[in-house]
Amino acid sequence: MPTLLHLDSSADLRHSRTRALTAAFADVWRAAGPDNLITRRDLHRDALPHLPDPALHWPPRLRPAGAAPPREAETLQRELIEELVSADVLLIGAPLYNYSVPSTLKVWLDNIHVPGVTAEFDGPGQRPLAGRPAVIVTSQGATYDEGTPTEGWDHEVPVLRLLLGTALGMDVTVVTVPLGLADLLPALADQRERAAADYAAAHETLTALARTLC
Amino acid sequence: MPTLLHLDSSADLRHSRTRALTAAFADVWRAAGPDNLITRRDLHRDALPHLPDPALHWPPRLRPAGAAPPREAETLQRELIEELVSADVLLIGAPLYNYSVPSTLKVWLDNIHVPGVTAEFDGPGQRPLAGRPAVIVTSQGATYDEGTPTEGWDHEVPVLRLLLGTALGMDVTVVTVPLGLADLLPALADQRERAAADYAAAHETLTALARTLC
Repeated sequence: MPTLLHLDSSADLRHSRTRALTAAFADVWRAAGPDNLITRRDLHRDALPHLPDPALHWPPRLRPAGAAPPREAETLQRELIEELVSADVLLIGAPLYNYSVPSTLKVWLDNIHVPGVTAEFDGPGQRPLAGRPAVIVTSQGATYDEGTPTEGWDHEVPVLRLLLGTALGMDVTVVTVPLGLADLLPALADQRERAAADYAAAHETLTALARTLC
Repeated sequence: MPTLLHLDSSADLRHSRTRALTAAFADVWRAAGPDNLITRRDLHRDALPHLPDPALHWPPRLRPAGAAPPREAETLQRELIEELVSADVLLIGAPLYNYSVPSTLKVWLDNIHVPGVTAEFDGPGQRPLAGRPAVIVTSQGATYDEGTPTEGWDHEVPVLRLLLGTALGMDVTVVTVPLGLADLLPALADQRERAAADYAAAHETLTALARTLC
């Protein structure tokens, strides 16, 4: 049965655009048939503990001598990786916070990127997610378009592409909704129409994408 | 009395290079005289809670209508900002984890970057840290030098420069120790000498810098 792993990391439980858009994707997935399963993990409401020991970046055979990470952290990490590997499609709501990844999402990434287990390190068969779709829904307060003074200030999407795409080999699609602060900041007031149009376009893109993936 | 705010975020309590280097800096600071104070905050051992509400990115007057972030989170944020503003020099141990900021350091950054309070937003006097030194000690598992295939994979230092430098106006110095995995990864074995030399150079740079700043 096709399974969607649906993650959200927005700290905004009232007006989040990424939460609304991942929910729209999940609605299409759910409506496609009774066999379509969804595993839901809210990284903000049910935050994971920070990785307690850097040895957890490696499987036991590759850890430095004497490493003894806490057993419960190992168990949790195994659950998170199994949950990811069991999913046919990964969906992540990933707002840009302070030019970077939300701290709650970073904890999840630190858990699931394990060379030799989810990423190629020294042998074949170490990329169980290779080729599987990962859909990233990211929101930005302003814009970081090419050619603007803030080009390159988004240091979240490149990290997600490196980890999920380059390292895990997933087929990454990024849908961006910029200008979340257009209503709040006078300097962005003239971009409100673009903000609304980009949101509507993202909604359409995501529901269409959900139909092709489920 | 000159005060150093000394932050560490490495999850490695045994062999961390950033912890050793920030400690060397702090030793010089402490030895310079009995008036030299150090405020110590270990972001890994005593991890801060994730920011519970995005309204905390703004001071009360700029928050969306109806925002009511938890009182204890506001109090903690105020303490963190006061601690930072009270410091004459900021020192951060900031290892690169999965091409990005450690989750524990990200939580601190999310707390202290508040437009209109620590960063210019709509008036004068909103950059109390402007011109003050911020010393970043960052470590990398591999290298992300210009001209290498992994150039641009460090998405931590740019974020620290944007937040502490561009937004808060601090005078940012970055000291980088690359190749932490040279001992572990066969592919990096031929770079062990460079790793050791770069570490020694960083130690010298930091202790010299500490002498000029204290």
